[in-house]
Amino acid sequence: MSKKRILVLGSTGSIGKQALAVIDFHSDKLELAGLAAYASVELLQAQSQKFGLKPELCVLTKQDGMDAMLALIDKSQADIVLNALVGSAGLRATMYTLELGLTLALANKESLIVGGELVTNLAKPEQILPVDSEHSAVFQCLLSGGVGPALKTLWLTASGGPFRGKSREQLAVVKSADALAHPTWSMGPKITVDSATLMNKGLEVIEAHFLFGIDYDDIKVLTQPRSLIHSMVEFVDGSTMAHVGTPDMRIPIQYAFSYPERWQSPIDFSIDYRQAGMLELAQPDTDTFGCLQLAFDAGRAGGTAPCILNAANELAVDAFLKDQIGFLDIEAAVADALSCFAGEVASLQSVEQLEDLDTRVRSYVTGRLIRV
Amino acid sequence: MSKKRILVLGSTGSIGKQALAVIDFHSDKLELAGLAAYASVELLQAQSQKFGLKPELCVLTKQDGMDAMLALIDKSQADIVLNALVGSAGLRATMYTLELGLTLALANKESLIVGGELVTNLAKPEQILPVDSEHSAVFQCLLSGGVGPALKTLWLTASGGPFRGKSREQLAVVKSADALAHPTWSMGPKITVDSATLMNKGLEVIEAHFLFGIDYDDIKVLTQPRSLIHSMVEFVDGSTMAHVGTPDMRIPIQYAFSYPERWQSPIDFSIDYRQAGMLELAQPDTDTFGCLQLAFDAGRAGGTAPCILNAANELAVDAFLKDQIGFLDIEAAVADALSCFAGEVASLQSVEQLEDLDTRVRSYVTGRLIRV
Repeated sequence: MSKKRILVLGSTGSIGKQALAVIDFHSDKLELAGLAAYASVELLQAQSQKFGLKPELCVLTKQDGMDAMLALIDKSQADIVLNALVGSAGLRATMYTLELGLTLALANKESLIVGGELVTNLAKPEQILPVDSEHSAVFQCLLSGGVGPALKTLWLTASGGPFRGKSREQLAVVKSADALAHPTWSMGPKITVDSATLMNKGLEVIEAHFLFGIDYDDIKVLTQPRSLIHSMVEFVDGSTMAHVGTPDMRIPIQYAFSYPERWQSPIDFSIDYRQAGMLELAQPDTDTFGCLQLAFDAGRAGGTAPCILNAANELAVDAFLKDQIGFLDIEAAVADALSCFAGEVASLQSVEQLEDLDTRVRSYVTGRLIRV
Repeated sequence: MSKKRILVLGSTGSIGKQALAVIDFHSDKLELAGLAAYASVELLQAQSQKFGLKPELCVLTKQDGMDAMLALIDKSQADIVLNALVGSAGLRATMYTLELGLTLALANKESLIVGGELVTNLAKPEQILPVDSEHSAVFQCLLSGGVGPALKTLWLTASGGPFRGKSREQLAVVKSADALAHPTWSMGPKITVDSATLMNKGLEVIEAHFLFGIDYDDIKVLTQPRSLIHSMVEFVDGSTMAHVGTPDMRIPIQYAFSYPERWQSPIDFSIDYRQAGMLELAQPDTDTFGCLQLAFDAGRAGGTAPCILNAANELAVDAFLKDQIGFLDIEAAVADALSCFAGEVASLQSVEQLEDLDTRVRSYVTGRLIRV
């Protein structure tokens, strides 16, 4: 059997590094087809050397430009393109991968959140394999769905983040270092802050809507603080399938590479469920954490609304990580941007339209945050 | 689409009655092909009338004999035979159904426990669809397994029964009425007592071994007192799929009829998982409840050992239900029979061999219980 060739976009980030560990472990089945990273030149070079890549299969986007990365997708002869880019930069890579007919292992949430129907209209069935743990979980649960329209409710689970149980008074004074101490998942800084605000779950709701074609009314969020249940799918016949296990991103990353097979995990992720004790399933505190509802609202508004939500959130989270604004200012900035740009929400036309809107939202939010 | 024709064997028992409710609800997709019951003549007649069955498609086994029931399987022109007979009487029906090439919806545990390889050697892939909630759960979880040998561990869940937490001193004085008050599942009396002793879980372990071809070392039992998790399958890649939901036998019964589709449930079984609260996963108390280990031992001994286990257990449970022996005498009777017949354990040859052994074990256990 010939090896599957994997192109890793965003190789120096958290997902990218774990993907390379999976490729290295399964070197009998997987082969690295190329690497792209934004700016971490030394790590990129080290990764390239370890896997013996030719220099032309390595792109540093900040230096070589976006077109060089898109050209890499073409010339890498990859079977699977892992899009682990951070933020809305991932949209062009996603669309180009789909246009080329390659399988897309999608870790870049923003592709679907911002790109919406532009992306789903391009994708053939199973061309997009989700890498987010929740969406990978849903994808696996749906394999038990059988034929026919059997889906009833999609249950996305959230850990609740490091600030679960805190009041808004307490949230007003937390710092970025507090937000980065995620209780269960090891992830990059942007997504870790998004977990703390519950925006991450909101973005996942929108992503799930597009990925699985599910109405927002049929997507529900519950908290499960230990992150042992990664999501559930309820069918019309009363059966609910849940994906359970150790919270480790190597599991969904590997599954996107191994699908439809399952391969041995790089380390033993087994849990002795007889010792697992109590699992708590509860309602998320949407009064205290406003971002989840903002995401539902933007998703339901549709069109370019999620792009506005996402741009404002990216900028605000970045400012919070630099300790320029407070934790609750993230939510306020997103709500403000959604309100200000409400009159501009339109149906999706093109990547250029989205990039233009993205720029204008960021500019607006930056101006407001400076005044804060 | 033509309707699936369902023959219900054991129609006046708990599973049989619920199966008829499912067939009635899905009368656009399902059609009753025939009925068999042991002795409840009035209920059988009422069922027959309700579905407008011809008299020759109705068999009362106690009066008409086992051959009449086997003939019914042949002449009913069923697509699916639901074997919901109680006890080892179900083995011949199972084997004949498989020989005829019909799909077998199997609720009769003893078919596989007693019949073992005699049954599995007859069955084509997916010819047996499990109706036990745990095995239906496992079957559904395995649909997410994908291609290849991906299974690692099968986790069978147990409620722990009504006596979970009790000491052996307390168990010594419980009565059949206490055992029949099952905390989560509505089932017939024999299986409800088996749940209380944990023998039910032991029988399911043996059944799972044969149904899914899984080594006993890879089958583990955990308690989950609320019975929301119906079983789990752990794969080699670190993913575990769990089947979750309301504990109601109509769900697995209907699934065996609808597979590979999923159909609307007769009533709304939805759970708001955000309100579900605490789920406890724990180790079963095998020191206090000895039957689970006895079943593992008999399963590992193989051949006719599970037949001995099952015959002794059926007889002892029957005596307990009549308040002729105590609760702990069930376990003692099974252990005694396994010990006494240990020298006779042999590989499976024929139904006649099993029926002969079954008779001798019952005779032996009866003699011992009279002396108790």
